[in-house]
Amino acid sequence: MAMLINGQPGEQVSALDRGLAYGDGIYRTIEIRAGQPRLWTWQYRRLVADARRLKLPVPDAALLLDEIGQLAGGLEQGVAKIVLTRGVGARGYAMPADVRPTRMVSVTAWAGYPPERARDGVHVRWCDTRLACQPLLAGIKHLNRLENVLARSEWSDPDIHEGLMLDTRGLLVEATMSNVYLVTGQQIITPKLDQSGVQGMLRDWLFAHAPQLGYPLVEAEILPAQLQAADAVFLSNSLIGLWPVASIDGQSLPHAHPCCAQLQALLAAEN
Amino acid sequence: MAMLINGQPGEQVSALDRGLAYGDGIYRTIEIRAGQPRLWTWQYRRLVADARRLKLPVPDAALLLDEIGQLAGGLEQGVAKIVLTRGVGARGYAMPADVRPTRMVSVTAWAGYPPERARDGVHVRWCDTRLACQPLLAGIKHLNRLENVLARSEWSDPDIHEGLMLDTRGLLVEATMSNVYLVTGQQIITPKLDQSGVQGMLRDWLFAHAPQLGYPLVEAEILPAQLQAADAVFLSNSLIGLWPVASIDGQSLPHAHPCCAQLQALLAAEN
Repeated sequence: MAMLINGQPGEQVSALDRGLAYGDGIYRTIEIRAGQPRLWTWQYRRLVADARRLKLPVPDAALLLDEIGQLAGGLEQGVAKIVLTRGVGARGYAMPADVRPTRMVSVTAWAGYPPERARDGVHVRWCDTRLACQPLLAGIKHLNRLENVLARSEWSDPDIHEGLMLDTRGLLVEATMSNVYLVTGQQIITPKLDQSGVQGMLRDWLFAHAPQLGYPLVEAEILPAQLQAADAVFLSNSLIGLWPVASIDGQSLPHAHPCCAQLQALLAAEN
Repeated sequence: MAMLINGQPGEQVSALDRGLAYGDGIYRTIEIRAGQPRLWTWQYRRLVADARRLKLPVPDAALLLDEIGQLAGGLEQGVAKIVLTRGVGARGYAMPADVRPTRMVSVTAWAGYPPERARDGVHVRWCDTRLACQPLLAGIKHLNRLENVLARSEWSDPDIHEGLMLDTRGLLVEATMSNVYLVTGQQIITPKLDQSGVQGMLRDWLFAHAPQLGYPLVEAEILPAQLQAADAVFLSNSLIGLWPVASIDGQSLPHAHPCCAQLQALLAAEN
């Protein structure tokens, strides 16, 4: 693990940082291949969008790329993480008049997930933990992640690879660390994220690329029963790529649909 | 400002602490008088209750009291803050098998709020930011506080002292940093906090003490219009004590009801 905090080597931050006090910040997790961040344009675009919604100043792309490059140089495969917070603040929720954000960039070596998950699919479960409906924070990859922590604490079986989550209305939102897609015929649907959930950058990428393969991708309100009825279900995040879902709570799903494999091939060709 | 981190003097924590990564922790803000934490029994009881709900180990009261005493010795008036997190973790939401929590105890000198606020009442506004309904986190003073940050960012006028918040259903919950009470005749009502909001320790104290003064305190679902119709409205938190509300969005409220002054007198006599 190597880390730069506001450009300086180090691994410690002030205990008064608002990122710690209130979760007042955002982050991104980025795959590193051959010393470079993958799908950087998509990652940075989402970082900027999230920062604007929380009125956080966002560093230049060139600065972040340079810092990732310093840490990842020569690394064949790894993970970068960018955390941006509203910096050190006085006591109280009010945003400081003069915000000096804290920028943490770290890179770790990492060999990736077992490749059979992308090929044969993963086994998932339904979580009991539901996501609250909060339009002001929905979609943002912010540092208030207790709901995901509680959901992920529901199981410890290593053969369960992800947990699906509903919102408090009973609609599908996401899995604990990934977005969810249902394939029906030639169409893909994915939950609207206007009430809760995280808009992953691969979700943006899929909106741009799935139609090119003949699969229009549309947002929808999705009930749990629709997953068993779909032709295929798959998950996305920046580190897993795309994982077909082989079973939910032990019930097998069809996952021979060509859609996911075609999208995986297209994604593998990206930088 | 003086701080102990896991008992050692310092003001820095690992950038990998789950308190920062996910807001995976809780905190308390405590008034210091003559070197001692006020209403400690109530503070510690609430800390334990919050920790249990998030499955966080909680330090012994004696350890925390000792650390506060080390930092606050000789301080006439100040603020202590205790932050407990699930400690440093690997990447991912899963709770570590072997949790080594991070304990931050700090004390700052502080002269308190202007005393006329407790005497003459405060001016408050309605916030547009609404609180999401999440029973699993409701009531806990956890580190996921972006909703409060957004609400507090709605105004900068120093003559507005607090902001009232509704939940997404339109029911009164709290103010950005305090609990809310409505006096009607001899009864006090306060919002149920089973869907959102923070259960302050003074709220617990009021449930125990208001009935002794002849004011039964009960939880209720409260609509915004009920505040203008109340005989008095007041706020509580551990640093402000009890503040009567003199106006909401410029509209004066009756605040000559003896209830708040009687409770303030009882509270002033506590250690």
